[in-house]
Amino acid sequence: MNLKKHIRIIKDFPKEGISFKDVESLLEHPEAFDFIIRSFAAKCMTQKINKIVALDARGFIFGGALAREMGLPMVMVRKKGKLPGETLKVSYDLEYGTNECEMHVSAIKKGDNVLMIDDLLATGGSAAAATELVKKLGGHVAYYGFVIELKSLRGRSSLAPEAEIVSLVKYED
Amino acid sequence: MNLKKHIRIIKDFPKEGISFKDVESLLEHPEAFDFIIRSFAAKCMTQKINKIVALDARGFIFGGALAREMGLPMVMVRKKGKLPGETLKVSYDLEYGTNECEMHVSAIKKGDNVLMIDDLLATGGSAAAATELVKKLGGHVAYYGFVIELKSLRGRSSLAPEAEIVSLVKYED
Repeated sequence: MNLKKHIRIIKDFPKEGISFKDVESLLEHPEAFDFIIRSFAAKCMTQKINKIVALDARGFIFGGALAREMGLPMVMVRKKGKLPGETLKVSYDLEYGTNECEMHVSAIKKGDNVLMIDDLLATGGSAAAATELVKKLGGHVAYYGFVIELKSLRGRSSLAPEAEIVSLVKYED
Repeated sequence: MNLKKHIRIIKDFPKEGISFKDVESLLEHPEAFDFIIRSFAAKCMTQKINKIVALDARGFIFGGALAREMGLPMVMVRKKGKLPGETLKVSYDLEYGTNECEMHVSAIKKGDNVLMIDDLLATGGSAAAATELVKKLGGHVAYYGFVIELKSLRGRSSLAPEAEIVSLVKYED
């Protein structure tokens, strides 16, 4: 399926010069969403995984549906202050300033082998921070799943080198 | 299925005196998540709906999986500043101050009959604001689906009176 034809491009968002790839327009097409979930499940079968880690907030859309498809638990990486229990936090750099994300310490057990899901791989900052959380809690990232990858931003280089990266739609720039 | 036994209660979050019901603990049990999605689909069949509206951010987990189950498009209500296209905004009151949420104006077409999904019904402020957005864009809320309802906060009274409210787990206080 040609997913690209369902992705709306919005110029100059979030700032001038950026062409934003809008994941919401994919969700307008149930057959595209279904194809995405089936594709992730099919491409992440070589290594045995036992948990989905989904990134706040659009990663939840795909992570939840994929967890159900694969019959696996899903845990969240959230922006700071959203999780009620004991958490582990990590900061990461943005273009201007820093951001913080966190996970429940109980969300990852030692030896967990996870598939991490987000809608988009850009610079990889948030996925790298989430990887750090998983590793500090004793887990291992076996796969990353992204609906869209913006290749020119070289986000792959920030991710766990031993993990397999599955991106379904690639843009050169 | 007794979903309550999978819901972790965390005392004094987000502030003293509040017992937070943690939806993430439900997601640790794939059979519970599957039961939730099947229950929503089964209970929202009397009226014909053509779209799922999911609320930022935990609503996305359930909204996405349910959209896939029902073969329907999903659209998002987001906190302000997150959507790239032309949006409609609405403010709503919080205990202290106000919040703002928005939708793409293209997300709802005149005559759309929607099922609105969130994890939790508390005071109903965010669902009521999202309802206003749907109505202003010419849509109609046929159902609300909440995993958890906190009955003592009387959120039902803020919602569209003609809609059917499906909540799967009820707490009296």
